[in-house]
Amino acid sequence: MNRLCVHTITTKPLSIEQIAEAYPRAGVSGITVWRDALEGRDVAATGRMLREAGLDVVSLCRGGFFPHTDAAARKLAIEDNLRAIEEAEALGAPMIVLVCGAAAGQPLETSRKQIAEGIAAIEPYAKAAGVRLAIEPLHPMYADTRSAINTLAQANDLAQQLNSPFVGVAVDVYHLWWDPALHQEINRCGSNGKLFAFHICDWRVPTRDLLLDRALMGEGCIPVKQIRQWVEATGFKGYHEVEIFSTEYWAGDQLVFLDKIKRAYLDHC
Amino acid sequence: MNRLCVHTITTKPLSIEQIAEAYPRAGVSGITVWRDALEGRDVAATGRMLREAGLDVVSLCRGGFFPHTDAAARKLAIEDNLRAIEEAEALGAPMIVLVCGAAAGQPLETSRKQIAEGIAAIEPYAKAAGVRLAIEPLHPMYADTRSAINTLAQANDLAQQLNSPFVGVAVDVYHLWWDPALHQEINRCGSNGKLFAFHICDWRVPTRDLLLDRALMGEGCIPVKQIRQWVEATGFKGYHEVEIFSTEYWAGDQLVFLDKIKRAYLDHC
Repeated sequence: MNRLCVHTITTKPLSIEQIAEAYPRAGVSGITVWRDALEGRDVAATGRMLREAGLDVVSLCRGGFFPHTDAAARKLAIEDNLRAIEEAEALGAPMIVLVCGAAAGQPLETSRKQIAEGIAAIEPYAKAAGVRLAIEPLHPMYADTRSAINTLAQANDLAQQLNSPFVGVAVDVYHLWWDPALHQEINRCGSNGKLFAFHICDWRVPTRDLLLDRALMGEGCIPVKQIRQWVEATGFKGYHEVEIFSTEYWAGDQLVFLDKIKRAYLDHC
Repeated sequence: MNRLCVHTITTKPLSIEQIAEAYPRAGVSGITVWRDALEGRDVAATGRMLREAGLDVVSLCRGGFFPHTDAAARKLAIEDNLRAIEEAEALGAPMIVLVCGAAAGQPLETSRKQIAEGIAAIEPYAKAAGVRLAIEPLHPMYADTRSAINTLAQANDLAQQLNSPFVGVAVDVYHLWWDPALHQEINRCGSNGKLFAFHICDWRVPTRDLLLDRALMGEGCIPVKQIRQWVEATGFKGYHEVEIFSTEYWAGDQLVFLDKIKRAYLDHC
């Protein structure tokens, strides 16, 4: 349980104040904070509250969304990422997860170029703040608007190209489980210190919604345990972060859901 | 228009007899027949009807679905594929599209092995019947149950491994548009005579359903024209096959829809 981290979005109906009580009580050790959970709060005070509750702040989620068809919007995106770096520093989060973005109105290659430029632009600020940036490849079904980075090979290539100790990748089983090159690419980022984060959940069969129907580990068809073994065989010592978007689970009692997460984590990860 | 082919599933509410009138009237030159459209018909007579209506029978859709956790089910799948080969021969279709299948209850690697074994088992019968087999890689969002072959690289590897002039690949823009290796892999199958079929439609933004929300060319974010240029630069001379599953379009007038398909084809492909 000392490697179990939960993303605030997973228990979206709970406020961060409720979470600060509920997660430690459920035996959760780490927390990844989504920016919406900080809205209207003093960020530094919230970080202290979480640490005083015994939680390790694993990362801030999320930066990114760099590609846009017009330059002004790209500039605003950079500024928003700089704010995210400030928030991470204030919160005491050592890492930001990057959901890189995509613009449906332009070629994927253009979006990919803009992502590389965007990360290069914010890297010096991340470095100065001591905040690492984790490029998260997203499932190809999100290539229209959420991310033009859709395989771990692409994320690894990008991290390699950017060549900074502050830029690495996040491996999320939901996005990557189908990829025949997954084991090989986990070895690649793991062996060169670029594997920054590991996210878990499951793929429901059948999946009823493209975004909000993620399942608990063990409920779907992803070999979570197998992928965890690949990740840890590279020497990864970080958290196992549970990130579930689910209309169904959000509709239920979140404390019961946290117990289910704990059970699923112990049984299937 | 002499390279425009439509899949019967695209106008699912029409019977094959209605299709035999409607497609030529709309200027459609080729037809890919889904097996459900043949139910209760004399297959050879249906083939004659289509040809007499001026339609070129491009392929029979679909064989495949080889992986299963139990051996008896795998044997039944092979038998069903042999029936599909007989149907294709009777219909006068020179090709069968293979949607390879996947079994959520076993590792993807196992499903992939069973797919290779399945195609190897039916290849001699396809050869004897003069029917080509086109492996269609499906979008990774279908890796749970519809296909464990999810990139063109995988399909090309498999076709190469099976090493038969009767085994090649089908390129469908819907499944493959996101792949950074797409151009390279189109060149690979195109240059060695393995590019058997080219399917078109578009990716709606946002997509509201994982299966039944395909869009008309030009309505979404797929660079259909660009991909067609890549395909034809390899020397591909086959049909441009419109394959759309859409609850929305199926609910409307199918003759109006055929006119829209023609317009979209001329403007965006």
